[in-house]
Amino acid sequence: MEKLPALVRETPSKIVLLLIDGLGGIPHPASGKTELESARKPNLDALAGKSTLGLLQPVGPGITPGSAPGHFGLFGYDPLKYDVGRGVLEALGIDFEPLPGDVAARGNFCTLDERGNIRDRRAGRLSNEECARLCQKLSTIALEGVQLFVQPVKEHRFVVVFRGSGLQSELSDSDPQKEGLAPVEVKPLAPGARATARLANRFIAEARALLRGEKTANMVLLRGFSRVPSLPSMSELFRLRPAAIASYPMYRGLAMLVGMTVLPTGPGLAYSLDTLAQNWARHDFFFVHVKEADAAGEDGDFDGKVRVIEEVDGQLPRVLDLKPDVLVVTGDHSTPALLKGHSWHPVPFLLYSSTCRPDGIAEFGERACGRGALGVIPSLHVLPLALAHAGKLVKYGA
Amino acid sequence: MEKLPALVRETPSKIVLLLIDGLGGIPHPASGKTELESARKPNLDALAGKSTLGLLQPVGPGITPGSAPGHFGLFGYDPLKYDVGRGVLEALGIDFEPLPGDVAARGNFCTLDERGNIRDRRAGRLSNEECARLCQKLSTIALEGVQLFVQPVKEHRFVVVFRGSGLQSELSDSDPQKEGLAPVEVKPLAPGARATARLANRFIAEARALLRGEKTANMVLLRGFSRVPSLPSMSELFRLRPAAIASYPMYRGLAMLVGMTVLPTGPGLAYSLDTLAQNWARHDFFFVHVKEADAAGEDGDFDGKVRVIEEVDGQLPRVLDLKPDVLVVTGDHSTPALLKGHSWHPVPFLLYSSTCRPDGIAEFGERACGRGALGVIPSLHVLPLALAHAGKLVKYGA
Repeated sequence: MEKLPALVRETPSKIVLLLIDGLGGIPHPASGKTELESARKPNLDALAGKSTLGLLQPVGPGITPGSAPGHFGLFGYDPLKYDVGRGVLEALGIDFEPLPGDVAARGNFCTLDERGNIRDRRAGRLSNEECARLCQKLSTIALEGVQLFVQPVKEHRFVVVFRGSGLQSELSDSDPQKEGLAPVEVKPLAPGARATARLANRFIAEARALLRGEKTANMVLLRGFSRVPSLPSMSELFRLRPAAIASYPMYRGLAMLVGMTVLPTGPGLAYSLDTLAQNWARHDFFFVHVKEADAAGEDGDFDGKVRVIEEVDGQLPRVLDLKPDVLVVTGDHSTPALLKGHSWHPVPFLLYSSTCRPDGIAEFGERACGRGALGVIPSLHVLPLALAHAGKLVKYGA
Repeated sequence: MEKLPALVRETPSKIVLLLIDGLGGIPHPASGKTELESARKPNLDALAGKSTLGLLQPVGPGITPGSAPGHFGLFGYDPLKYDVGRGVLEALGIDFEPLPGDVAARGNFCTLDERGNIRDRRAGRLSNEECARLCQKLSTIALEGVQLFVQPVKEHRFVVVFRGSGLQSELSDSDPQKEGLAPVEVKPLAPGARATARLANRFIAEARALLRGEKTANMVLLRGFSRVPSLPSMSELFRLRPAAIASYPMYRGLAMLVGMTVLPTGPGLAYSLDTLAQNWARHDFFFVHVKEADAAGEDGDFDGKVRVIEEVDGQLPRVLDLKPDVLVVTGDHSTPALLKGHSWHPVPFLLYSSTCRPDGIAEFGERACGRGALGVIPSLHVLPLALAHAGKLVKYGA
């Protein structure tokens, strides 16, 4: 894989990565079929018959991936090498554009009692409006040598981003995660992180002073300090002109981290595919993200997830009409509705291209893909395979 | 995999590893079926239909594993990183409880002629009683700074264990492995091993003096010096409370090395399953070892191995009655009766759990498992998969 960048050449060929978030499932006890296996999806099944099939292991055996490692692998970045912390992910989730070196933390507004102990970690779940008002208040804080961003997320939650040179994120939380205790000092967890710890504590002290008059939200708790990783871009590594089409901010953010151009789009796959068609000429790699399958899985909504897959199937001809040289349909991880959360189960994978060796299995499903010739492969193998089928890789060795 | 320990959480869920030693085989030319494929095993076949199937590669492609690497992989320890030498294995095989840092060697009583050359490497295959008597004699040897254990194994074979601080096992054999030659001096093979080499030569010299009056067994030969490895325990690495149920000493010894509690049991699987049921509440990981399949394979007894598998099948409902959250049925390596020994062939593997994605193949056999969705995976992947299906792994990454 280290040798890959040296083998890439630019060609006009086009790759589409149609990523159905949380695609994989486990069988419903009543039917013995997964969400994908239950869905009526004639277009995906027909495509499967002309494709190479397999299953993806996003991180490692038994490992349930978070969203960042799930996507990084598919983008061609080793998820065990590149990581994104909680704070950064929260910032990406509100469409904040972080720069490499920024340190972000998740924040809670909370209520302290008269003795300074936490009475309510969520300050009675503020309204979004209250949260926005308080964030504006905290935005007035000035710390020497750093730029500060305080952005509302939802209810009591906000993000704080420190921007400046030499910031480090090896910091302990100020949030003791328990009520009845006092907030704790942020401590440096590495020698280089002392200055950043001082800044964080300074921010907390000033926030406390500013919030003194508030009835419920009279303090902040910070946790999940993390630094925006500096990643080589997909254009540097793979000579691609990549674009991201995602209606949810966090996925746009992850795409931004690897140097994709984020294309403005609206909600839903139909809108995303308008965007895809409009920008077809300008890019050679398109990451199209479908969030709703994961959301239904997380909700335990088996039938809802089936419907999302059927909707994707209905839209699939629009992707095929563009005649991509390579079309990959897969997911970043499994989200079985029966488990109501991400899981470690391998993810169905389909690669369609004029150069592929079809398995002749005209079904897109977990068990069908399990019979595919590719077997179970790491998600990290997807990008090299896509590049190869797009004719973008030259021979290795003499 | 290095990240695994950080992802483990303790839960009450229970894992059973039912290890049929030497399980895999190759087809009998007459029937075209392996031992496992020939066995009548309705319970295992039914379980396979509800399980995830695959084949295990214990160490690497084409590599025939010894007992130690075969088991270590399944216990979650990289068999290429952790090894157990011949001497230590011999000590484990007689239920000797070695401590980390002990150095053990295999010993032979032999006959020297009047010129000091080896006439008989096995001293005419002593009786076990004679061996025990001579070992007692050698146990009187006192070496400064180390404790010495000399234990009979069988016929002319014994084990010597040196216990003390700073002992090293990089030592050459004193056994020239040929008759007509004189025993050779034990030489240090690493700079740090000089002191231990002196101790070994001192032991040999004193043994020679003590055995001077013996008719046949008038000398000892030592080989396979090895040090008991210091392994992190399974409770440290995987937060398990593991127990081993094995009627053969060597396997109890291997389990001990990774920190399992060895449960007293009797011969045969029925007895082992009594032990399992009696200790069900006290542990969350059970290694149940069935030796007889390997023994039959080593003997070239195809039908005998088939019968062992059928006996396991008959006992399987007793394991299922305990309702383990995860049940793994597999082997440490293949021992095809046609090869009369361990082999490199991948080993049938079955994982049953309420969260598994069944392959729908209602047969437990080499070729059936080869069609399983897991494909061929390293034995080292079994423990992470079992932990995942037992709900003992948290999400990786944000």
